[in-house]
Amino acid sequence: MTLDNIKQEIKNAGKIVILTHESPDGDAIGSSLAMYNALKQLNKQVDLIIPEYPETFNFLEGAEEIKKQGQEDEKYDLAIALDAADVKRLNGFAKYFENAKVTINIDHHGSNKMFADYNFVNPDAPACCQILILVLEYLGVDITKEIGTCLIAGIITDTGGFKYSGTSKETFEFTSWLLSIGVNVSEVYRKVLEVRTKGNFALTKLAIDRLELLEDGKIAFTYITKEDEKNVNAKNGDHDGLVDIGRTIEGVEVSILLREADGFFKGSLRSNEYVNVSDVCMMFGGGGHVRAAGCSIHLPLEEAKEKIINEVKKHLK
Amino acid sequence: MTLDNIKQEIKNAGKIVILTHESPDGDAIGSSLAMYNALKQLNKQVDLIIPEYPETFNFLEGAEEIKKQGQEDEKYDLAIALDAADVKRLNGFAKYFENAKVTINIDHHGSNKMFADYNFVNPDAPACCQILILVLEYLGVDITKEIGTCLIAGIITDTGGFKYSGTSKETFEFTSWLLSIGVNVSEVYRKVLEVRTKGNFALTKLAIDRLELLEDGKIAFTYITKEDEKNVNAKNGDHDGLVDIGRTIEGVEVSILLREADGFFKGSLRSNEYVNVSDVCMMFGGGGHVRAAGCSIHLPLEEAKEKIINEVKKHLK
Repeated sequence: MTLDNIKQEIKNAGKIVILTHESPDGDAIGSSLAMYNALKQLNKQVDLIIPEYPETFNFLEGAEEIKKQGQEDEKYDLAIALDAADVKRLNGFAKYFENAKVTINIDHHGSNKMFADYNFVNPDAPACCQILILVLEYLGVDITKEIGTCLIAGIITDTGGFKYSGTSKETFEFTSWLLSIGVNVSEVYRKVLEVRTKGNFALTKLAIDRLELLEDGKIAFTYITKEDEKNVNAKNGDHDGLVDIGRTIEGVEVSILLREADGFFKGSLRSNEYVNVSDVCMMFGGGGHVRAAGCSIHLPLEEAKEKIINEVKKHLK
Repeated sequence: MTLDNIKQEIKNAGKIVILTHESPDGDAIGSSLAMYNALKQLNKQVDLIIPEYPETFNFLEGAEEIKKQGQEDEKYDLAIALDAADVKRLNGFAKYFENAKVTINIDHHGSNKMFADYNFVNPDAPACCQILILVLEYLGVDITKEIGTCLIAGIITDTGGFKYSGTSKETFEFTSWLLSIGVNVSEVYRKVLEVRTKGNFALTKLAIDRLELLEDGKIAFTYITKEDEKNVNAKNGDHDGLVDIGRTIEGVEVSILLREADGFFKGSLRSNEYVNVSDVCMMFGGGGHVRAAGCSIHLPLEEAKEKIINEVKKHLK
């Protein structure tokens, strides 16, 4: 069984590296730090490499030990990828994964490419952190208050604060248990989902002012340019949640945010009840989950807007 | 014990009336409907009177049976007040309470006036609906999917979606159990907290555009006039959540919303970490919870604004 193999490989490994996906969110960082702290507890030699991530997560145990980059020619005995659907999403750090003697992939994306020697993937789990509860227990790790805090940070991020339909019986049971061991769930909630930076507030104002309701109010569209982000002095992560503004308006089925990147637009899509936005994004070479997906569109704003809206229209009832 | 008395009085009563506080929110409506459905299950003759409430809650079992007003000279054997801190807050309907032979008060406000024959008040409970779990079990009620849906609607409303610090181990345990009996928690979440009406969206836009950060960013202030609500064709409940916009900005401790009523302003205050906004509101004859409170200020906008900000300032570190 895969969990036995994972346990054995961790036991055998000298140097271990933990990697996660680019533009890491709370589940990527939470699961990476939970695993990092767990492996430390098992007295393993471990590096966690994340080039850039939102400051929001600095309160998590071990955050100050995250490496921004590894040694150029470092070879690891074992590489563990967390919350990453594809080895390509490990970005500039795939080399550590590809050069490692043994590789493990723990994830909850339905689109996972099963790219490691051992793949422990459960698309029914609402967060990679929720899968880790089982994995860590199997490894004999004591889930401390600190590790529990990392796990709940990921769970809160990926369930939108216990909101999305993937939130399960086990999610609530585990959270109840975390409260009993003293984890301050509401503080984590506030830090992870609630506190908006001044930059995010400024971008929210712009996104709301520009928001258009189209197709009889079934589509909400808005956008943010590089210029906007510069003007409000936006930092990494300040655009998080902008796509949700449109999704929450009554009657809206699909919310679209186009955010300008270097020479192209990143599309973020959310749906409420029936549109599979992962299918929509796949038409642009992207993907994701049924109700939350993304893609890149190499076109000017107006054309990108028209193209993505036309694609969404095909899926509307 | 109070619960025994409550059980006995319900058993003895012929005609029962359920009442809740004015401007009812999800916990007021959820607890009232849960009790209403429970008493129906026990084959009691029961009226639920709520003069006006947001349409959002029409999906709850029994909502179509809510009476907007009672018979002028109706006398009840038993009146049950839910989620109401004060008999005065029962508004024009206090008469049914005062004229009833026996009265029961079930609530979770710390400021509850213990105004009934039997008072079952637990200020540690994050929602009146959470208290009802225990009460209904004690009454021998089968908590069906429909009753569970009413209860979770109240819990989600008053915990801000499992967010506020009062959210307890029991809250998560009960929610986990509700999932196991088939309650669609994420759908209730979306209906209760997430779907914003077009009127709410328009008011949000205004509140954000007007939002000021004061006292080194520790106070967020915004306002909404009657004229605004008329312009955007706002309905009952469309202003819900506006005060939370300011609360979520980094660095903000107290968020203030002034909303114009008939000849005065209703102040809504929220705090994040240390200011007791119930104390602030008490200075204006209002009150509430430590982190969420309200009051009425009979002054023009600019004066009301100055006065409430000055009061908040006294509490800032």
